[in-house]
Amino acid sequence: MAGASQVLQLTDPLPLDGGGELHGAEIAFETYGTLAGDGSNAILLCHALTGDQYVASPHPVTGKPGWWERMVGPGKPIDTDRYFVICANVVGSCMGSTGPASEAPDGKPYAMRFPVITIRDMVRGLVALLDGLGIDKLHAVVGGSMGGMQALSLAANWPDRAERVLVIASTSRHSAQNIAFHELGRQAVMADPNWHQGDYYAQESQPDSGLAVARMAAHITYLSEEALTGKFGRNLQDRDTKSFGFDADFQVESYLRYQGSGFTRRFDANSYLYITRAMDYFDLAEEHGGKLANAFAGTEARFCLVSFDSDWLYPTAESRHVVHALNAAGAAVSFVELSAPHGHDSFLLDVPALDRVVKGFIE
Amino acid sequence: MAGASQVLQLTDPLPLDGGGELHGAEIAFETYGTLAGDGSNAILLCHALTGDQYVASPHPVTGKPGWWERMVGPGKPIDTDRYFVICANVVGSCMGSTGPASEAPDGKPYAMRFPVITIRDMVRGLVALLDGLGIDKLHAVVGGSMGGMQALSLAANWPDRAERVLVIASTSRHSAQNIAFHELGRQAVMADPNWHQGDYYAQESQPDSGLAVARMAAHITYLSEEALTGKFGRNLQDRDTKSFGFDADFQVESYLRYQGSGFTRRFDANSYLYITRAMDYFDLAEEHGGKLANAFAGTEARFCLVSFDSDWLYPTAESRHVVHALNAAGAAVSFVELSAPHGHDSFLLDVPALDRVVKGFIE
Repeated sequence: MAGASQVLQLTDPLPLDGGGELHGAEIAFETYGTLAGDGSNAILLCHALTGDQYVASPHPVTGKPGWWERMVGPGKPIDTDRYFVICANVVGSCMGSTGPASEAPDGKPYAMRFPVITIRDMVRGLVALLDGLGIDKLHAVVGGSMGGMQALSLAANWPDRAERVLVIASTSRHSAQNIAFHELGRQAVMADPNWHQGDYYAQESQPDSGLAVARMAAHITYLSEEALTGKFGRNLQDRDTKSFGFDADFQVESYLRYQGSGFTRRFDANSYLYITRAMDYFDLAEEHGGKLANAFAGTEARFCLVSFDSDWLYPTAESRHVVHALNAAGAAVSFVELSAPHGHDSFLLDVPALDRVVKGFIE
Repeated sequence: MAGASQVLQLTDPLPLDGGGELHGAEIAFETYGTLAGDGSNAILLCHALTGDQYVASPHPVTGKPGWWERMVGPGKPIDTDRYFVICANVVGSCMGSTGPASEAPDGKPYAMRFPVITIRDMVRGLVALLDGLGIDKLHAVVGGSMGGMQALSLAANWPDRAERVLVIASTSRHSAQNIAFHELGRQAVMADPNWHQGDYYAQESQPDSGLAVARMAAHITYLSEEALTGKFGRNLQDRDTKSFGFDADFQVESYLRYQGSGFTRRFDANSYLYITRAMDYFDLAEEHGGKLANAFAGTEARFCLVSFDSDWLYPTAESRHVVHALNAAGAAVSFVELSAPHGHDSFLLDVPALDRVVKGFIE
């Protein structure tokens, strides 16, 4: 299907958690379906770290199908015949919303002059978009992984803006191990001499090598050990015997190299730094006096949390932690751990049980 | 304590699994204690990926204590008043044994002209060392992690050379996830422009940035999520509030950066490539017709396998897999999974239960 591509320039400056404001920020977004006259059928989808607004329409750079086509479309679990679906590129990213690659007021790219942002800052941008679209209250906000963090942040900080909150394979805070993997990725980018302290936009070469290594590291965390073994095991790539060299002998090596190099064609290295930083800073309890239940005090929204048993990036215990806080806050919440072999990436892949949960919850 | 440092130059060429031979290879090793007149009290310790022969004596580069001082010494579980302990730097490494940084016959460093080696090649070097020392049969061969692979390889390929085989936190084959993490590290090294296709020895700068990133990635796998959370959680480093910048705000970031940069002072980047490759190639069953039990057919050695419940690099299932093969081969084997919070690194850390197992098994 085709989405409607639009860009909203915010008229008010966007206040930031780190202090200061972002002036003239733009939010690029896609919409699918038709907004009801009373504005009651809007669903906001929040994308993950390296995701974007192209949920159910082809990616303009890669030409690949949207990242959640299995879930969003006419007659799909998030049915665009019934709902008006909005997905915006988060501030700090690189697919049309204002980020480090965007022009600063002095006409040059922000690069590392871009302010460090938080998940709440991203959501502030999304709320400004909803204001711009005249949507007071969402039928639902839905997100997986970093998208789930945004959904939680919206529910906690703008409790009147969503009736339903669906959080998939996510967490209310980044663990030390989560931070460690992100820091590894950032160091890989910053170690690339083509990074040039972030000022590479006018250079011939970009920090592609470092970004590819960062992506490889992240990709390992997105798959379960079981999924890697099932997919690749110790199978050799295009050969019968080991090369006794440093080519990609094993299929898993070849796969990772492909994932790394493919990623650099569509993603900005500085955006990777800023967005991973925002995720590492995320700690919803800390924002609310150190007690997660406080974040949801008095909420009238209905919540649904979904985790996957093979997800070792944001394991079930993280979802359960949120559920307990919602229980303590007296919120209406349902929770399900789904069995799927793919690891964290399960939320993007063929897991029919997830389709049923999503469809059931938003109806 | 002080070890006796020696280097043995092999008179015979070392045949290699990849074909060809290594001529004039040198094996640098440390010994502790005194060899009995009948040669019956020798214990061979095999080191891990980035380990070396300095088991119980200070490291000559870092000045730090030996890596297993808690286990090896007078009156310690591996008692040097009773046993003659040998630990050799593996071929391919960089602490005195022949490796990529060594001089090739043409007088220049081998660099990437060094042949790709296997775990069995390393053990071939160790067996040549035992021959040189006049040791026909070891009282025991002991190793953790990659050291355990060597112990298994020795037991499988030279079944008459060791009476006891102690394998700690190890595996009989590298999994797809293990390979993935190593490939990530190799790509980080090779992406560093100072790597120069391996020919960096005469250059002013070495591929330290890439090697540091590789070490950071590996280090994450050596610690459990629980250990990282217990050690660091989301604690900030030397500050009260987030910097909203890209400094090492979190203690875990600071720790990883320190681990990465410290490592490059003592380790050669090309050795890291070669040794990780050897580990990825390791598949003891494959060497023996695809059936692991075949590797141990007819063995008269006694085996002990130890795993740690928090080790996600080589989890308990990997040790159990070896134990089942040993059972099928009719070998004498004991197995214990120890509870320790440190993850894979538990074999190097303060786990009193391990001391008791080691002491009990080798007596």
